[in-house]
Amino acid sequence: MRSMPIVTFLTDFGMNDAYVGVMKAVVLSRAPSAQLVDITHKVPPGRIVSGAFLLESAWPFFPADSIHLAVVDPGVGSSRRRIALEADGHYFVGPDNGLLSCALPEVSRPRRRPGDGYLAQRLTLPQGFKGVIIEPGNREDVSATFEGRDVFAPAAGHLASGGRLSDLGPLVNDIAALPAFRAPRSQDGVLRGVVLHVDHFGNAITDVAGSDLPNPCLVEVAGRSLELRRTYAESGGVCAIVSSAGRVEVAMPNGSAARDLGLAAGAEVNVRPIGWSR
Amino acid sequence: MRSMPIVTFLTDFGMNDAYVGVMKAVVLSRAPSAQLVDITHKVPPGRIVSGAFLLESAWPFFPADSIHLAVVDPGVGSSRRRIALEADGHYFVGPDNGLLSCALPEVSRPRRRPGDGYLAQRLTLPQGFKGVIIEPGNREDVSATFEGRDVFAPAAGHLASGGRLSDLGPLVNDIAALPAFRAPRSQDGVLRGVVLHVDHFGNAITDVAGSDLPNPCLVEVAGRSLELRRTYAESGGVCAIVSSAGRVEVAMPNGSAARDLGLAAGAEVNVRPIGWSR
Amino acid sequence: MRSMPIVTFLTDFGMNDAYVGVMKAVVLSRAPSAQLVDITHKVPPGRIVSGAFLLESAWPFFPADSIHLAVVDPGVGSSRRRIALEADGHYFVGPDNGLLSCALPEVSRPRRRPGDGYLAQRLTLPQGFKGVIIEPGNREDVSATFEGRDVFAPAAGHLASGGRLSDLGPLVNDIAALPAFRAPRSQDGVLRGVVLHVDHFGNAITDVAGSDLPNPCLVEVAGRSLELRRTYAESGGVCAIVSSAGRVEVAMPNGSAARDLGLAAGAEVNVRPIGWSR
Repeated sequence: MRSMPIVTFLTDFGMNDAYVGVMKAVVLSRAPSAQLVDITHKVPPGRIVSGAFLLESAWPFFPADSIHLAVVDPGVGSSRRRIALEADGHYFVGPDNGLLSCALPEVSRPRRRPGDGYLAQRLTLPQGFKGVIIEPGNREDVSATFEGRDVFAPAAGHLASGGRLSDLGPLVNDIAALPAFRAPRSQDGVLRGVVLHVDHFGNAITDVAGSDLPNPCLVEVAGRSLELRRTYAESGGVCAIVSSAGRVEVAMPNGSAARDLGLAAGAEVNVRPIGWSR
Repeated sequence: MRSMPIVTFLTDFGMNDAYVGVMKAVVLSRAPSAQLVDITHKVPPGRIVSGAFLLESAWPFFPADSIHLAVVDPGVGSSRRRIALEADGHYFVGPDNGLLSCALPEVSRPRRRPGDGYLAQRLTLPQGFKGVIIEPGNREDVSATFEGRDVFAPAAGHLASGGRLSDLGPLVNDIAALPAFRAPRSQDGVLRGVVLHVDHFGNAITDVAGSDLPNPCLVEVAGRSLELRRTYAESGGVCAIVSSAGRVEVAMPNGSAARDLGLAAGAEVNVRPIGWSR
Repeated sequence: MRSMPIVTFLTDFGMNDAYVGVMKAVVLSRAPSAQLVDITHKVPPGRIVSGAFLLESAWPFFPADSIHLAVVDPGVGSSRRRIALEADGHYFVGPDNGLLSCALPEVSRPRRRPGDGYLAQRLTLPQGFKGVIIEPGNREDVSATFEGRDVFAPAAGHLASGGRLSDLGPLVNDIAALPAFRAPRSQDGVLRGVVLHVDHFGNAITDVAGSDLPNPCLVEVAGRSLELRRTYAESGGVCAIVSSAGRVEVAMPNGSAARDLGLAAGAEVNVRPIGWSR
């Protein structure tokens, strides 16, 4: 374990309340020298897919042994399990609702089918990955509404202080998993994508992988057909580019593509080889 | 003193400016290994009661010797004092306007009376608690508008670097104290509460303590009568639950109770024993 | 180098995405014990002048050897250079678009002329200041859209881990520099200022230095003539004061001067000696 173990935080708790600070207090009580890093607390409330997408875009950049505490949990207080995973040298702590499945490699996750959305399915943990069900020590102390404080932060603090995953509870074999964020291809060769996230700049980030693109191609979204550009700087107006995360993104330099085109998470995006005609 | 002393920050400064970063710079100049933790900087501007409520809901979760720097200060530049407190093994630094009275146990604070709001009153510090008036060393350096940088951050940095409370200035015997956040009971047995805070999820958190509740009871708010539920998950629509902080909260899973009912801080909430008729 | 080197972050990335967390991950991968401090991530998108103003108001309060990573970069992906500076014992990393010129003393920066705005000009680095062009080691890994992650964070991490400035790339002699934030005086003795930034409280902070003020004087803004006050507390209504950063600020206690007067960054503010008549 590192002398300053990294604990990251991703939630839909917002920044207006004391909830995030309280979770950090609980972590620091167990691991006083932890490096606490916020990924974001502005996941749209209850949107597990958005949370998983944002966590997936961040955690691989952290060094090994980092602990990622993630809570986007519309089912808090219900019977869904609380889990901790060890995956690729990283640790993940959160509700078993699909959020943490972004810890698994894309190839081991379910595949989305054209027309389907991102709904979690049960998935057996692939070899080399370990998971446990977190069993809170003292059930009396556990509130029904703030498991971030009472279950997840103590577990993250336990791991950050050098505690073992297996101390947290019994092994688990399967977890809730979201399909890999990768647009399926229709029989006609068209990639049938969706907008996963609209960022601060109004860029609409899709689940179309840059590496899946036919070349040349057209990106169809909101009734528009867009050509691919290489950078924001070379484009005027709304354009499509392959983003820093390797995904097709609908962008508008010095403006908001999402606002301009009326795009939100879930909007359909099709990528069509050029030359193909409907 | 800890090797990485914890300094928390709670202000109404927002996140758009450099003010918070500057306060942290000043703390780090004096205590380079401090653990800096934001509680929130989105206290509604000037609302001392909201700030005190949020600080009260967070600080007890931090380990002993933590230093809590809190600035919600509509009177900056006026003659109100700047104080530092030692309370229950924690340190508190901020304006003497009621904000820091949340460091004191509920029983030692004034009691609110039915119909009254949360106005600060002078209170003699109870036994075991220590306070000082912060005397800035060099009055020339002190701006009239940013005491967070010029008075409070240096004091917090002093404490974080192992400096003594008594070095900051002369002892103080009384401080401005807000009433304890606990709804009074009317002669008719009804708890006369108010909404203390609306959180990011639109939950309206009241000053009615879960432990004060008659059983069974009805929560009356905005012309509605709500039954108590145990968790968010088991409820549909708007409901009342006892929150993670032990308070009655008006909530709406997958929606905003505050928006739905038009609730804001200060709104009245009555809790009435069931069976009782007006 | 410090045992916990300070790395500050200032961007226009907002708080809703994983971008800032990813940059921190990259820094921590190289400098595990770094003190990471956010200045702000809410610089209005693409507004270099706002970013430079906010950075200038914060960095001098940090201890020597701090590393300031700043990205406000409407030209990302274009041919503008990426630079790192050593200035006054601090390090600065970011795009060469004027943002980092706030590292230079006011006297060495261009002067704004009445009627002109804040446009960057080429400036030879003054003696005692050192700059390099950051050359990303492996061009293949560098995305065209997220140089914060691929260029600037690695450079900041390099410096935070004790690496030398000169390891980052070749020396540079001139950088893009914004004029000093100091209102010029017209021939008629009037200071011709502009609003640089509107803060969270609605205070409109101008480029008029408190030390340049004629005494007595009137502050003219949005058709109003305001007298100077010493503190927020002694004023009712909209007023002008000299802010904690030594600048004239148009403020309104318990309200928003910017909203009340319709002020935004760029608005004109004139300061006129009293007794002078148009």
